[in-house]
Amino acid sequence: MLQKDLPFSQTEFDRRLELTRMAMEDAGIDLLFVTDPSNQNWLTAYDGWSFYVHQGVMVPMEGDPIWWGRRMDSFGARRTCWMAEEQILGYGDHFVQSTERHPMQDLAGRIYALGLGSVRIGVEMENYYYSAKAHEVLTEMLPDATFVDATALVNWQRLIKSEEEIAFIRKAAKISEKVVQTAIDKAEPGLKKNELVAEIMKAGIAGVDDIWGDYPAIVPLTPSGLDATAAHLTWNGDEMRKNEATFFELSGCYRRYHAPLCRTVYLGKPPKEVLNAEKAQLEGIEAGLAAARAGNRACDIANAFIGVLQKHGIHREGRCGYPIGLSYPPDWGERTASIRSEDETVLEPGMVFHFMPALWLETWGLETTETILIKETGEAETLCDMPRKLFVKD
Amino acid sequence: MLQKDLPFSQTEFDRRLELTRMAMEDAGIDLLFVTDPSNQNWLTAYDGWSFYVHQGVMVPMEGDPIWWGRRMDSFGARRTCWMAEEQILGYGDHFVQSTERHPMQDLAGRIYALGLGSVRIGVEMENYYYSAKAHEVLTEMLPDATFVDATALVNWQRLIKSEEEIAFIRKAAKISEKVVQTAIDKAEPGLKKNELVAEIMKAGIAGVDDIWGDYPAIVPLTPSGLDATAAHLTWNGDEMRKNEATFFELSGCYRRYHAPLCRTVYLGKPPKEVLNAEKAQLEGIEAGLAAARAGNRACDIANAFIGVLQKHGIHREGRCGYPIGLSYPPDWGERTASIRSEDETVLEPGMVFHFMPALWLETWGLETTETILIKETGEAETLCDMPRKLFVKD
Repeated sequence: MLQKDLPFSQTEFDRRLELTRMAMEDAGIDLLFVTDPSNQNWLTAYDGWSFYVHQGVMVPMEGDPIWWGRRMDSFGARRTCWMAEEQILGYGDHFVQSTERHPMQDLAGRIYALGLGSVRIGVEMENYYYSAKAHEVLTEMLPDATFVDATALVNWQRLIKSEEEIAFIRKAAKISEKVVQTAIDKAEPGLKKNELVAEIMKAGIAGVDDIWGDYPAIVPLTPSGLDATAAHLTWNGDEMRKNEATFFELSGCYRRYHAPLCRTVYLGKPPKEVLNAEKAQLEGIEAGLAAARAGNRACDIANAFIGVLQKHGIHREGRCGYPIGLSYPPDWGERTASIRSEDETVLEPGMVFHFMPALWLETWGLETTETILIKETGEAETLCDMPRKLFVKD
Repeated sequence: MLQKDLPFSQTEFDRRLELTRMAMEDAGIDLLFVTDPSNQNWLTAYDGWSFYVHQGVMVPMEGDPIWWGRRMDSFGARRTCWMAEEQILGYGDHFVQSTERHPMQDLAGRIYALGLGSVRIGVEMENYYYSAKAHEVLTEMLPDATFVDATALVNWQRLIKSEEEIAFIRKAAKISEKVVQTAIDKAEPGLKKNELVAEIMKAGIAGVDDIWGDYPAIVPLTPSGLDATAAHLTWNGDEMRKNEATFFELSGCYRRYHAPLCRTVYLGKPPKEVLNAEKAQLEGIEAGLAAARAGNRACDIANAFIGVLQKHGIHREGRCGYPIGLSYPPDWGERTASIRSEDETVLEPGMVFHFMPALWLETWGLETTETILIKETGEAETLCDMPRKLFVKD
């Protein structure tokens, strides 16, 4: 008998399976095939850096979920999934990145063998790990099945977090505080950016006390000056310079759960326009937080924030946040609701968002963000404890 | 005029474009749409952690490539791509992770506007960043176009490295030596695995002298004991223990180029079966390296290695390696040739492989690998300088 270190209680996994099956029933799906690694983990606890080959979890309407992947990784599945060994299926290595064969040929055979070759099968059409080719092969191999787009079907079930999950996000938040503090403390003119990132990564993986650090789904983003006008540039070996703003877009991670936290450091004396933008941003965040309460909608947060910016003469378009929690690369957002003007998702207690009211302006950028938990009553709780301001090191 | 820090000469980018267009012509493709971030970077130098939203590079048969992505990221494209600003196209944020719109609607409009709405369009059907949904929307929006599967078309052009690229891989190899040495030096009973990984990551990003460390496309894999029978488990907060083998699957990275290097550490006195396996593995690696020469085939390396193992009574299936170089998460392999018994790709000077003759056995695993460069004459050069053995710390 293998010793397993499951992250959550069986009650929690049962809850997730039940929610998923209710959504399957609503969508008229008999068999769900989940390829999003976060959804796989959420349903089965499977954890490993193996999502670069085809793998997934099958959820029939009855019985336990079935993990399917490369045979080499089935050993990891046996060690990390809550299901019994019989629910773990591995395909041979001759399917891996072959120019002649495709793993979906193996999956199709498994689905036939389960007697599910002609049912309604839900697949995640919009996912990094379900390629156009995978869909083509699977549909060709199962001509009697009906395919239904089940993109984000499981992701939507993840939107409201359980107490067990919130406890994990709180642990991630402790690490987030540490990594952002490390970045602020170390930043100084002349420090090479990669050396700063090296310290940030070390702090995050070392974790806090017995909260060990897992890898965040996005690498540290730490652009300075003009580079900070582009949201997603990574670092290089250039030195930090006086009279530049650098934003830190970072998250701690505990057992795949995240709590992103961004702050900006200015080395030198910030010009007036930066200070004005900071003032507008902080006031906007206050307004957004005040709107972040159960019963309001996601757009109410965005509109409250954008309204304050407009009052200060700052034009801001784009999303101002997204739900977060469990994730794998390349994104730590959950890809369901968005904090933006057109999103009418009603906020409920237990939802967790990265409220991301960043400003990317013509010649510099300013990121000050919070991971927030929607409460039963009152405004949202910010899960990280970190002064909300532009950090000036003169 | 933006200052750019391009990684390679214009001659190098011209070479790549020419190779790509020759392959397009062979495949009867008029317009290639490249979504693999590594291929995007190889063709245009675009670099940023933005591949989690839809983006790509269009290569028509004439004129410069066109970068297309989220408007927010077009600023990063202007700063990192070698092409002029007019070749950078951005789509609005209302397309991002929307439940109503898809970015491929925007792309289709761009292709129409280029007068290419009814040509033969190559798309990378088997790629993490070209979803089943993306293909569905793009083909629906361009009913007069003919779609051709161009999976790995660009990847195959990357197989033989230029001198400029080999210089980058040599720099990555210097970092690989440092990270593996760090892992070997720090490993000891009682050390928490996440603390070890924290040191490994710091060493890799800090780099060596002026060789700054970029993020590798795979996180450090460092499983011990039974966990090492599963190839792709990541770390946790458990302490390292006496009488266990831990393998380190690591790579340095310099400007997205990799040179993976794996070694195994045994804390204590290794049992005879481990030492026997080590002996077989090392002898097998020697045989594989001797076969790794221009004119031989990829399978010759695999068969030489597997032949030695068989002589020692060890059964080994699966791939023994893959080409490496430029890469983004989630995989550092190039997904073209494989070092395996059925692959008859002829080896040519300038090819670089991660020769990965790992052993994953019933109760432990042993990884000792090399990044190798195929030379004009003689056997392959191992690019990292690191004793090839099981490291025993008793």
